[in-house]
Amino acid sequence: MKKYLILFFACLLSLNLFAQEKPVKIVFDVTSDDVKVHQKAVRHVKMMSEAYPDSDFEIVVYSGALDMVLNDKSSVAEDLSKLAQDEHVTVAVCNGTMARENKDGTALLPGVKVVPDGILEIAQKQSQGWSYIKEQ
Amino acid sequence: MKKYLILFFACLLSLNLFAQEKPVKIVFDVTSDDVKVHQKAVRHVKMMSEAYPDSDFEIVVYSGALDMVLNDKSSVAEDLSKLAQDEHVTVAVCNGTMARENKDGTALLPGVKVVPDGILEIAQKQSQGWSYIKEQ
Amino acid sequence: MKKYLILFFACLLSLNLFAQEKPVKIVFDVTSDDVKVHQKAVRHVKMMSEAYPDSDFEIVVYSGALDMVLNDKSSVAEDLSKLAQDEHVTVAVCNGTMARENKDGTALLPGVKVVPDGILEIAQKQSQGWSYIKEQ
Repeated sequence: MKKYLILFFACLLSLNLFAQEKPVKIVFDVTSDDVKVHQKAVRHVKMMSEAYPDSDFEIVVYSGALDMVLNDKSSVAEDLSKLAQDEHVTVAVCNGTMARENKDGTALLPGVKVVPDGILEIAQKQSQGWSYIKEQ
Repeated sequence: MKKYLILFFACLLSLNLFAQEKPVKIVFDVTSDDVKVHQKAVRHVKMMSEAYPDSDFEIVVYSGALDMVLNDKSSVAEDLSKLAQDEHVTVAVCNGTMARENKDGTALLPGVKVVPDGILEIAQKQSQGWSYIKEQ
Repeated sequence: MKKYLILFFACLLSLNLFAQEKPVKIVFDVTSDDVKVHQKAVRHVKMMSEAYPDSDFEIVVYSGALDMVLNDKSSVAEDLSKLAQDEHVTVAVCNGTMARENKDGTALLPGVKVVPDGILEIAQKQSQGWSYIKEQ
Protein backbone atom coordinates (compact mmCIF):
# COMPACT_ATOMS: atom_id res chain seq x y z
CA MET A 1 0.00 0.00 0.00
CA LYS A 2 2.85 2.35 0.86
CA LYS A 3 4.18 1.98 -2.67
CA TYR A 4 0.90 3.05 -4.23
CA LEU A 5 0.78 6.07 -2.00
CA ILE A 6 4.28 7.09 -3.02
CA LEU A 7 3.31 6.61 -6.64
CA PHE A 8 0.16 8.61 -6.18
CA PHE A 9 1.93 11.53 -4.54
CA ALA A 10 4.66 11.44 -7.17
CA CYS A 11 1.92 11.97 -9.76
CA LEU A 12 0.34 14.76 -7.74
CA LEU A 13 3.71 16.43 -7.31
CA SER A 14 4.35 16.35 -11.04
CA LEU A 15 0.94 17.84 -11.68
CA ASN A 16 1.65 20.51 -9.15
CA LEU A 17 4.60 21.74 -11.18
CA PHE A 18 2.07 23.00 -13.69
CA ALA A 19 -0.30 24.50 -11.16
CA GLN A 20 2.04 26.49 -8.93
CA GLU A 21 4.32 29.19 -10.29
CA LYS A 22 5.43 31.70 -7.72
CA PRO A 23 8.23 33.41 -9.63
CA VAL A 24 6.63 34.41 -12.93
CA LYS A 25 8.02 34.05 -16.44
CA ILE A 26 6.90 36.67 -18.91
CA VAL A 27 7.64 37.12 -22.61
CA PHE A 28 7.08 40.65 -23.98
CA ASP A 29 6.09 40.96 -27.65
CA VAL A 30 7.39 44.20 -29.22
CA THR A 31 6.60 44.95 -32.88
CA SER A 32 5.88 48.67 -32.85
CA ASP A 33 8.14 51.23 -34.53
CA ASP A 34 7.03 53.80 -31.92
CA VAL A 35 9.90 54.73 -29.61
CA LYS A 36 7.40 55.33 -26.81
CA VAL A 37 6.52 51.64 -26.96
CA HIS A 38 10.23 50.73 -26.84
CA GLN A 39 10.65 52.92 -23.76
CA LYS A 40 7.55 51.46 -22.13
CA ALA A 41 8.73 47.88 -22.72
CA VAL A 42 12.14 48.63 -21.22
CA ARG A 43 10.60 50.41 -18.24
CA HIS A 44 8.24 47.49 -17.59
CA VAL A 45 10.98 44.87 -17.65
CA LYS A 46 13.35 47.05 -15.63
CA MET A 47 10.81 47.63 -12.88
CA MET A 48 9.68 44.02 -12.81
CA SER A 49 13.15 42.50 -12.80
CA GLU A 50 14.03 44.73 -9.85
CA ALA A 51 10.81 43.94 -7.98
CA TYR A 52 10.89 40.19 -8.74
CA PRO A 53 14.56 39.21 -9.01
CA ASP A 54 13.81 35.47 -9.19
CA SER A 55 11.39 35.85 -12.09
CA ASP A 56 12.38 35.54 -15.74
CA PHE A 57 11.67 38.03 -18.49
CA GLU A 58 12.24 38.01 -22.21
CA ILE A 59 11.71 40.84 -24.67
CA VAL A 60 11.21 39.59 -28.23
CA VAL A 61 11.75 42.28 -30.86
CA TYR A 62 10.58 41.71 -34.44
CA SER A 63 8.65 43.25 -37.33
CA GLY A 64 8.57 47.06 -37.09
CA ALA A 65 10.49 47.26 -33.79
CA LEU A 66 13.97 46.41 -35.10
CA ASP A 67 15.38 49.90 -34.41
CA MET A 68 14.95 49.22 -30.69
CA VAL A 69 17.97 46.88 -30.70
CA LEU A 70 20.21 48.59 -33.29
CA ASN A 71 23.28 50.29 -31.84
CA ASP A 72 22.96 53.33 -34.11
CA LYS A 73 19.20 53.79 -33.82
CA SER A 74 17.92 52.59 -30.44
CA SER A 75 16.32 55.19 -28.17
CA VAL A 76 16.76 52.85 -25.22
CA ALA A 77 20.34 51.72 -25.85
CA GLU A 78 21.76 52.20 -22.38
CA ASP A 79 18.87 50.71 -20.42
CA LEU A 80 18.46 47.81 -22.82
CA SER A 81 22.14 46.85 -22.71
CA LYS A 82 22.08 46.97 -18.92
CA LEU A 83 18.94 44.81 -18.82
CA ALA A 84 20.50 42.26 -21.17
CA GLN A 85 23.28 41.69 -18.63
CA ASP A 86 20.77 40.47 -16.03
CA GLU A 87 20.85 36.68 -16.01
CA HIS A 88 17.05 36.65 -15.61
CA VAL A 89 16.43 38.91 -18.61
CA THR A 90 16.80 38.01 -22.28
CA VAL A 91 16.58 40.53 -25.10
CA ALA A 92 15.96 38.65 -28.33
CA VAL A 93 15.62 39.82 -31.92
CA CYS A 94 14.17 37.92 -34.87
CA ASN A 95 16.73 36.83 -37.45
CA GLY A 96 14.11 36.98 -40.21
CA THR A 97 13.45 40.65 -39.44
CA MET A 98 17.21 41.37 -39.44
CA ALA A 99 17.65 39.64 -42.80
CA ARG A 100 14.76 41.61 -44.34
CA GLU A 101 16.42 44.84 -43.18
CA ASN A 102 19.92 43.71 -44.24
CA LYS A 103 21.35 43.81 -40.73
CA ASP A 104 23.77 41.38 -39.13
CA GLY A 105 25.00 40.87 -35.57
CA THR A 106 27.44 43.78 -35.74
CA ALA A 107 24.50 46.20 -35.90
CA LEU A 108 23.08 45.00 -32.58
CA LEU A 109 23.43 46.47 -29.11
CA PRO A 110 25.68 44.38 -26.85
CA GLY A 111 23.90 41.47 -25.16
CA VAL A 112 21.07 41.16 -27.69
CA LYS A 113 20.47 37.53 -28.67
CA VAL A 114 19.41 36.54 -32.18
CA VAL A 115 16.60 33.96 -32.46
CA PRO A 116 15.65 32.32 -35.79
CA ASP A 117 12.02 33.45 -35.66
CA GLY A 118 10.45 35.96 -33.28
CA ILE A 119 6.93 34.55 -33.37
CA LEU A 120 8.17 30.98 -32.98
CA GLU A 121 10.27 32.07 -29.99
CA ILE A 122 7.21 33.66 -28.35
CA ALA A 123 5.02 30.64 -29.11
CA GLN A 124 7.56 28.22 -27.67
CA LYS A 125 7.93 30.26 -24.51
CA GLN A 126 4.16 30.26 -24.05
CA SER A 127 3.98 26.51 -24.58
CA GLN A 128 6.62 26.20 -21.84
CA GLY A 129 4.32 28.05 -19.44
CA TRP A 130 5.50 31.62 -19.89
CA SER A 131 2.90 34.38 -19.72
CA TYR A 132 2.55 36.80 -22.62
CA ILE A 133 2.30 40.58 -22.74
CA LYS A 134 1.83 42.53 -25.98
CA GLU A 135 3.54 45.89 -25.64
CA GLN A 136 1.69 48.68 -27.35
CA MET B 1 -6.35 -4.50 -9.44
CA LYS B 2 -9.26 -2.30 -8.51
CA LYS B 3 -6.91 -0.09 -6.52
CA TYR B 4 -4.61 0.47 -9.48
CA LEU B 5 -7.55 1.37 -11.64
CA ILE B 6 -8.76 3.93 -9.13
CA LEU B 7 -5.27 5.32 -8.92
CA PHE B 8 -4.98 5.47 -12.68
CA PHE B 9 -8.28 7.27 -13.14
CA ALA B 10 -7.43 9.67 -10.34
CA CYS B 11 -4.36 10.63 -12.33
CA LEU B 12 -6.34 10.94 -15.54
CA LEU B 13 -8.91 13.07 -13.78
CA SER B 14 -6.24 15.42 -12.47
CA LEU B 15 -4.78 15.73 -15.92
CA ASN B 16 -8.18 16.42 -17.29
CA LEU B 17 -8.45 19.56 -15.19
CA PHE B 18 -5.86 21.05 -17.49
CA ALA B 19 -7.39 19.81 -20.71
CA GLN B 20 -11.07 20.65 -20.27
CA GLU B 21 -12.29 24.15 -19.53
CA LYS B 22 -15.89 24.66 -20.49
CA PRO B 23 -16.52 27.98 -18.78
CA VAL B 24 -13.66 30.18 -19.95
CA LYS B 25 -11.54 32.57 -17.92
CA ILE B 26 -10.24 35.58 -19.78
CA VAL B 27 -8.02 38.45 -18.68
CA PHE B 28 -8.24 41.60 -20.82
CA ASP B 29 -5.12 43.79 -21.02
CA VAL B 30 -5.97 47.48 -21.49
CA THR B 31 -3.15 50.03 -21.79
CA SER B 32 -4.41 52.40 -24.47
CA ASP B 33 -5.37 56.02 -23.76
CA ASP B 34 -7.87 55.82 -26.63
CA VAL B 35 -11.44 56.01 -25.33
CA LYS B 36 -12.57 53.85 -28.24
CA VAL B 37 -10.42 51.04 -26.85
CA HIS B 38 -11.97 51.56 -23.40
CA GLN B 39 -15.44 51.33 -24.92
CA LYS B 40 -14.50 48.24 -26.92
CA ALA B 41 -13.11 46.48 -23.83
CA VAL B 42 -16.26 47.21 -21.85
CA ARG B 43 -18.50 46.10 -24.71
CA HIS B 44 -16.55 42.84 -25.08
CA VAL B 45 -16.75 41.95 -21.39
CA LYS B 46 -20.39 43.03 -21.13
CA MET B 47 -21.43 40.86 -24.08
CA MET B 48 -19.38 37.88 -22.95
CA SER B 49 -20.47 37.98 -19.32
CA GLU B 50 -24.09 38.01 -20.49
CA ALA B 51 -23.54 35.21 -23.00
CA TYR B 52 -21.40 33.06 -20.67
CA PRO B 53 -22.59 33.78 -17.13
CA ASP B 54 -20.48 30.98 -15.59
CA SER B 55 -17.27 32.26 -17.13
CA ASP B 56 -14.87 34.65 -15.41
CA PHE B 57 -13.52 37.89 -16.81
CA GLU B 58 -11.00 40.38 -15.57
CA ILE B 59 -10.09 43.73 -17.08
CA VAL B 60 -6.62 44.90 -16.04
CA VAL B 61 -6.07 48.62 -16.59
CA TYR B 62 -2.55 50.06 -16.46
CA SER B 63 -0.08 52.30 -18.26
CA GLY B 64 -1.85 54.81 -20.53
CA ALA B 65 -5.37 53.55 -19.79
CA LEU B 66 -5.77 54.94 -16.25
CA ASP B 67 -8.49 57.44 -17.24
CA MET B 68 -10.77 54.49 -17.97
CA VAL B 69 -11.27 53.85 -14.24
CA LEU B 70 -11.16 57.44 -12.87
CA ASN B 71 -14.53 58.76 -11.67
CA ASP B 72 -13.95 62.21 -13.18
CA LYS B 73 -12.52 61.10 -16.51
CA SER B 74 -13.89 57.72 -17.56
CA SER B 75 -15.91 57.60 -20.77
CA VAL B 76 -17.36 54.24 -19.71
CA ALA B 77 -18.18 55.05 -16.07
CA GLU B 78 -21.70 53.70 -15.92
CA ASP B 79 -21.11 50.46 -17.81
CA LEU B 80 -17.85 49.75 -16.00
CA SER B 81 -19.35 50.26 -12.54
CA LYS B 82 -22.22 47.95 -13.45
CA LEU B 83 -19.81 45.33 -14.75
CA ALA B 84 -17.72 45.51 -11.58
CA GLN B 85 -20.77 44.45 -9.57
CA ASP B 86 -20.97 41.14 -11.43
CA GLU B 87 -19.39 38.47 -9.23
CA HIS B 88 -17.79 36.92 -12.33
CA VAL B 89 -16.19 40.18 -13.47
CA THR B 90 -13.22 41.96 -11.91
CA VAL B 91 -12.07 45.43 -12.93
CA ALA B 92 -8.51 45.90 -11.68
CA VAL B 93 -6.15 48.84 -11.89
CA CYS B 94 -2.38 48.86 -11.37
CA ASN B 95 -1.24 50.55 -8.16
CA GLY B 96 2.07 51.51 -9.77
CA THR B 97 0.25 53.39 -12.53
CA MET B 98 -1.93 55.15 -9.94
CA ALA B 99 1.11 56.19 -7.91
CA ARG B 100 2.87 57.57 -11.01
CA GLU B 101 -0.24 59.67 -11.75
CA ASN B 102 -0.68 60.71 -8.09
CA LYS B 103 -4.08 59.08 -7.74
CA ASP B 104 -5.45 57.18 -4.77
CA GLY B 105 -8.52 55.01 -4.24
CA THR B 106 -10.86 57.99 -3.89
CA ALA B 107 -10.31 58.82 -7.57
CA LEU B 108 -11.59 55.43 -8.72
CA LEU B 109 -15.01 54.41 -9.97
CA PRO B 110 -16.93 52.29 -7.47
CA GLY B 111 -16.07 48.59 -7.60
CA VAL B 112 -12.62 48.99 -9.16
CA LYS B 113 -10.04 46.82 -7.38
CA VAL B 114 -6.42 47.97 -6.96
CA VAL B 115 -3.70 45.39 -7.69
CA PRO B 116 -0.02 45.98 -6.85
CA ASP B 117 1.21 45.48 -10.41
CA GLY B 118 -0.88 45.23 -13.57
CA ILE B 119 1.54 43.10 -15.57
CA LEU B 120 2.16 40.75 -12.64
CA GLU B 121 -1.60 40.38 -12.21
CA ILE B 122 -2.00 39.43 -15.88
CA ALA B 123 0.97 37.04 -15.77
CA GLN B 124 -0.33 35.29 -12.67
CA LYS B 125 -3.77 34.89 -14.19
CA GLN B 126 -2.23 33.33 -17.30
CA SER B 127 -0.15 30.95 -15.20
CA GLN B 128 -3.41 29.92 -13.51
CA GLY B 129 -4.86 28.96 -16.88
CA TRP B 130 -6.63 32.16 -17.85
CA SER B 131 -6.65 33.13 -21.52
CA TYR B 132 -5.34 36.53 -22.57
CA ILE B 133 -6.75 39.20 -24.87
CA LYS B 134 -4.92 42.42 -25.67
CA GLU B 135 -7.47 45.15 -26.26
CA GLN B 136 -6.45 47.57 -28.94
CA MET C 1 6.07 -4.43 -9.88
CA LYS C 2 6.05 -4.29 -13.64
CA LYS C 3 2.45 -3.12 -13.57
CA TYR C 4 3.24 -0.20 -11.30
CA LEU C 5 6.06 0.81 -13.55
CA ILE C 6 3.80 0.79 -16.58
CA LEU C 7 1.26 2.80 -14.65
CA PHE C 8 3.91 5.25 -13.54
CA PHE C 9 5.24 5.80 -17.03
CA ALA C 10 1.73 6.12 -18.39
CA CYS C 11 1.27 9.02 -15.99
CA LEU C 12 4.61 10.55 -16.93
CA LEU C 13 3.76 10.22 -20.59
CA SER C 14 0.45 11.98 -20.11
CA LEU C 15 2.17 14.78 -18.24
CA ASN C 16 4.71 15.02 -20.99
CA LEU C 17 2.01 15.87 -23.50
CA PHE C 18 1.72 19.20 -21.75
CA ALA C 19 5.43 19.81 -21.44
CA GLN C 20 6.67 18.99 -24.92
CA GLU C 21 5.23 20.63 -28.00
CA LYS C 22 7.53 20.49 -30.96
CA PRO C 23 5.09 21.52 -33.64
CA VAL C 24 3.58 24.76 -32.35
CA LYS C 25 -0.04 25.88 -32.43
CA ILE C 26 -0.57 29.61 -32.70
CA VAL C 27 -3.74 31.69 -32.77
CA PHE C 28 -3.38 35.17 -34.26
CA ASP C 29 -5.72 37.88 -32.96
CA VAL C 30 -6.54 40.49 -35.62
CA THR C 31 -8.82 43.43 -34.73
CA SER C 32 -7.20 46.36 -36.51
CA ASP C 33 -8.80 48.14 -39.47
CA ASP C 34 -5.31 48.97 -40.75
CA VAL C 35 -4.58 47.09 -44.00
CA LYS C 36 -0.90 47.00 -43.08
CA VAL C 37 -1.81 44.86 -40.08
CA HIS C 38 -3.86 42.57 -42.32
CA GLN C 39 -0.88 42.21 -44.64
CA LYS C 40 1.47 41.58 -41.75
CA ALA C 41 -0.78 38.88 -40.28
CA VAL C 42 -1.02 37.10 -43.63
CA ARG C 43 2.73 37.35 -44.19
CA HIS C 44 3.44 35.93 -40.72
CA VAL C 45 1.14 32.93 -41.16
CA LYS C 46 2.31 32.31 -44.72
CA MET C 47 5.98 32.28 -43.73
CA MET C 48 5.38 30.16 -40.65
CA SER C 49 3.15 27.60 -42.32
CA GLU C 50 5.82 27.14 -44.99
CA ALA C 51 8.65 26.89 -42.46
CA TYR C 52 6.75 24.65 -40.02
CA PRO C 53 4.38 22.55 -42.13
CA ASP C 54 3.36 20.32 -39.18
CA SER C 55 2.36 23.25 -37.00
CA ASP C 56 -1.15 24.67 -36.79
CA PHE C 57 -2.16 28.27 -37.24
CA GLU C 58 -5.44 30.11 -36.88
CA ILE C 59 -6.19 33.72 -37.73
CA VAL C 60 -9.20 35.06 -35.83
CA VAL C 61 -10.67 38.20 -37.37
CA TYR C 62 -13.13 40.33 -35.38
CA SER C 63 -13.98 43.86 -34.29
CA GLY C 64 -12.47 46.45 -36.65
CA ALA C 65 -10.73 43.92 -38.90
CA LEU C 66 -13.79 42.55 -40.73
CA ASP C 67 -12.76 44.03 -44.11
CA MET C 68 -9.82 41.65 -44.14
CA VAL C 69 -12.10 38.69 -44.95
CA LEU C 70 -14.72 40.40 -47.17
CA ASN C 71 -14.52 39.46 -50.84
CA ASP C 72 -15.16 43.03 -52.02
CA LYS C 73 -12.89 44.81 -49.56
CA SER C 74 -9.96 42.61 -48.54
CA SER C 75 -6.49 43.86 -49.41
CA VAL C 76 -5.12 40.35 -48.90
CA ALA C 77 -7.80 38.38 -50.75
CA GLU C 78 -5.56 36.16 -52.86
CA ASP C 79 -3.04 35.24 -50.16
CA LEU C 80 -5.73 34.70 -47.54
CA SER C 81 -7.79 32.40 -49.75
CA LYS C 82 -4.69 30.38 -50.55
CA LEU C 83 -3.78 30.14 -46.87
CA ALA C 84 -7.29 29.00 -45.97
CA GLN C 85 -6.82 25.97 -48.24
CA ASP C 86 -3.91 24.72 -46.14
CA GLU C 87 -5.20 21.99 -43.84
CA HIS C 88 -3.01 23.37 -41.04
CA VAL C 89 -4.34 26.91 -41.36
CA THR C 90 -7.75 28.19 -40.31
CA VAL C 91 -9.05 31.65 -41.12
CA ALA C 92 -11.96 32.41 -38.80
CA VAL C 93 -14.26 35.41 -38.54
CA CYS C 94 -16.54 36.35 -35.64
CA ASN C 95 -20.25 35.94 -36.33
CA GLY C 96 -21.09 38.73 -33.89
CA THR C 97 -18.93 41.16 -35.84
CA MET C 98 -20.56 40.06 -39.12
CA ALA C 99 -24.05 40.55 -37.66
CA ARG C 100 -23.19 44.04 -36.40
CA GLU C 101 -21.98 44.94 -39.90
CA ASN C 102 -24.95 43.25 -41.61
CA LYS C 103 -22.82 40.74 -43.48
CA ASP C 104 -23.57 37.09 -44.14
CA GLY C 105 -21.52 34.20 -45.47
CA THR C 106 -21.89 35.29 -49.11
CA ALA C 107 -19.74 38.35 -48.37
CA LEU C 108 -16.78 36.25 -47.24
CA LEU C 109 -13.70 35.18 -49.14
CA PRO C 110 -13.70 31.46 -50.00
CA GLY C 111 -12.44 29.23 -47.19
CA VAL C 112 -13.16 31.64 -44.35
CA LYS C 113 -14.86 29.87 -41.43
CA VAL C 114 -17.47 31.61 -39.28
CA VAL C 115 -17.16 31.15 -35.50
CA PRO C 116 -19.88 32.28 -33.06
CA ASP C 117 -17.60 34.57 -31.04
CA GLY C 118 -14.07 35.67 -31.93
CA ILE C 119 -12.86 36.24 -28.37
CA LEU C 120 -14.36 32.96 -27.16
CA GLU C 121 -12.65 31.16 -30.04
CA ILE C 122 -9.28 32.65 -29.07
CA ALA C 123 -9.81 31.90 -25.38
CA GLN C 124 -10.74 28.29 -26.08
CA LYS C 125 -7.71 27.80 -28.29
CA GLN C 126 -5.46 29.15 -25.55
CA SER C 127 -7.05 26.88 -22.98
CA GLN C 128 -6.27 23.99 -25.34
CA GLY C 129 -2.60 24.93 -25.26
CA TRP C 130 -2.35 27.20 -28.28
CA SER C 131 0.00 30.16 -28.07
CA TYR C 132 -1.32 33.64 -28.72
CA ILE C 133 -0.04 36.49 -30.86
CA LYS C 134 -1.74 39.89 -31.05
CA GLU C 135 -1.19 41.34 -34.51
CA GLN C 136 -0.71 45.06 -34.49
